[in-house]
Amino acid sequence: MAHLHPRTQLSRESIFAQMSRLAAQHGAINLGQGFPSNPPPDFLLEAARRAIGSVDQYTPPIGLPRLREAVAEDLGVSPEDVIITAGGTEALHALAEALYGPDDEVVMLEPYFDVYIPQARIAGAEPVMVPMQLTERWEVDLPALERAISVRTQAILLTNPYNPTGSVFSRAEAQRIVELARRHDLWIISDEVYDELYFGEPPVRFRELAPERVFTVGSAGKRLEATGWRIGWIVTPPGLAPQVAGMRQWSSFCSAAPLQAAVAEALPIARKEGFYQALRESYGRRKDLLEQGLRSLGLKTFSPAGTYFLTALLPGLEAQTLVREAKVAIIPGSAFYLHNPAPQGLFRLAFCKTSDEIEQALERLGHYLKQVTP
Amino acid sequence: MAHLHPRTQLSRESIFAQMSRLAAQHGAINLGQGFPSNPPPDFLLEAARRAIGSVDQYTPPIGLPRLREAVAEDLGVSPEDVIITAGGTEALHALAEALYGPDDEVVMLEPYFDVYIPQARIAGAEPVMVPMQLTERWEVDLPALERAISVRTQAILLTNPYNPTGSVFSRAEAQRIVELARRHDLWIISDEVYDELYFGEPPVRFRELAPERVFTVGSAGKRLEATGWRIGWIVTPPGLAPQVAGMRQWSSFCSAAPLQAAVAEALPIARKEGFYQALRESYGRRKDLLEQGLRSLGLKTFSPAGTYFLTALLPGLEAQTLVREAKVAIIPGSAFYLHNPAPQGLFRLAFCKTSDEIEQALERLGHYLKQVTP
Repeated sequence: MAHLHPRTQLSRESIFAQMSRLAAQHGAINLGQGFPSNPPPDFLLEAARRAIGSVDQYTPPIGLPRLREAVAEDLGVSPEDVIITAGGTEALHALAEALYGPDDEVVMLEPYFDVYIPQARIAGAEPVMVPMQLTERWEVDLPALERAISVRTQAILLTNPYNPTGSVFSRAEAQRIVELARRHDLWIISDEVYDELYFGEPPVRFRELAPERVFTVGSAGKRLEATGWRIGWIVTPPGLAPQVAGMRQWSSFCSAAPLQAAVAEALPIARKEGFYQALRESYGRRKDLLEQGLRSLGLKTFSPAGTYFLTALLPGLEAQTLVREAKVAIIPGSAFYLHNPAPQGLFRLAFCKTSDEIEQALERLGHYLKQVTP
Repeated sequence: MAHLHPRTQLSRESIFAQMSRLAAQHGAINLGQGFPSNPPPDFLLEAARRAIGSVDQYTPPIGLPRLREAVAEDLGVSPEDVIITAGGTEALHALAEALYGPDDEVVMLEPYFDVYIPQARIAGAEPVMVPMQLTERWEVDLPALERAISVRTQAILLTNPYNPTGSVFSRAEAQRIVELARRHDLWIISDEVYDELYFGEPPVRFRELAPERVFTVGSAGKRLEATGWRIGWIVTPPGLAPQVAGMRQWSSFCSAAPLQAAVAEALPIARKEGFYQALRESYGRRKDLLEQGLRSLGLKTFSPAGTYFLTALLPGLEAQTLVREAKVAIIPGSAFYLHNPAPQGLFRLAFCKTSDEIEQALERLGHYLKQVTP
């Protein structure tokens, strides 16, 4: 009788946690897991130090009112439609529980971000994977997306900007996806945790195209370089926030109260002081550094339009060997594929690290490639 | 097609959130939701202010290593068996997902703490309720507990000290419960978030009686008066921590990193400096104040042996009316009963409030009772 439920088999160590562990073990530079080397901005840290000792008890599960208002103000939505969560991960978990059940299907793209599959399966639903096309850039295969939709489909789950590809949907692509969702009456879950991290035009916000059916996921951790603070949010279609908030009430009850207060204070400052613009410029430089470095090693890269990730082809290399021998940790493309094979030699590299770390990683990679290339 | 999953119907506003909202709305003294009026201790706040700006990125989902070690040291267990969670609520959520599935049953006592039921149902399991006996004190009905066990039972879910009754299992009761679990090969989930809040002998730690089958849930928020920080833990039977930690990896990924670091620093200080002893003395005084006050109003109370809650009979009164007319918020006993009727006139009152608040609440209650009693 006493046994663990089979769903615990979904709970292997994630590739990100594993590569971070191996990086530490082998003294490798960690271009694997996507957490920034830079500290969060002072205006956020100071707000948190002030909140500690004054906002220490439970907040409502739906969120501290002033944070719901700050998120709403930032995104131009109603505070009534905002739910604060323990990071983007819990936002996606609450949405999986609120929207999917046994016999449901959820359509997502491959490569996919790792939490999507176990979260869908824990809610009882089956993920249906549509591979992105990779030629000179990553592109969504719209006819394949439509073919993947069945009478069981509840939702399309997207990321924009897209982790791990770094791609951004064009407005035309986004509009065609929204038309599909309307025609088949599906929810869209739009994971927009990298919404302020782009290198060209600002990415489309799916909610603006279809507010009645889009759930948007956001993250203060990604925006403000504090991934360990676990402050994220959901913007729901009008009227649905209380029911979805109930789902997070039974997981973590509420997000860390003093950190909610700090983010509430920081969001308008970040916007007013051009923090995101500066962040984009800083990441843009590091993206160029990494990309040019890889190209000068003769490697093929796919230039990202957003996120702090870059995909590249390092044919014949293997992540576990690289971390041990080259002392550079990167994520193998296969980690992002479930049903379809990953493109040969695909890797994801994070450039949310210091320029020094990126330069040293490139040097180590170059040295290693010389050794192994005949 | 696009609809919310029926499980969102489990997500009504909790009675605790509702009474806190009504208390604020009517200017009532809130003896409802269990959050302390006192601030967390300075040694915890100072540790947090130092951690902000130095521990800001993801920690491993299983927890910051130094916090796992501090919890293990405090409880006398191995750090390998400790998982850090976003409060006791997420600990219980992860255990529900790790241990129950469709067609499983979980046996729990009535009155029960509100998250137990939706968490069991979200995991697909059916809660089976065994009412506590209430005569002069709250007692577990051991024959009824055994009758409630079926071939489908996966676990017995207990609280010790017990919210809402404030009761503590005697060693003999605990041993008989453990024997039952052994005989039927069941897990025991022991929710011990109030482990340091007792007024007589220290409560039995179920894990010491059956380490092979007991999952213990603990809470830094309850111990250190910071309920909004969302730092809790699970101690698992040996060898099971990685699989259970996987379940929390898909809900909130990790707990708030700087607050984990602060709690790691605070736990040994709290132990060494006698913080819990002082807390017990302070709560003991407030318990006596509330209990004697209620008795002098002619009301029947059930003296708690632990927690910061007291149950009492206020026959003929109604919580929604009380908050509006007496301006005192308390929780109706019916909130803690699912299948069986609550004892007539039962209420739960929190004494984790200041003496002034308790005195004023008693005065308001007394005044109100005079008005409504013929």
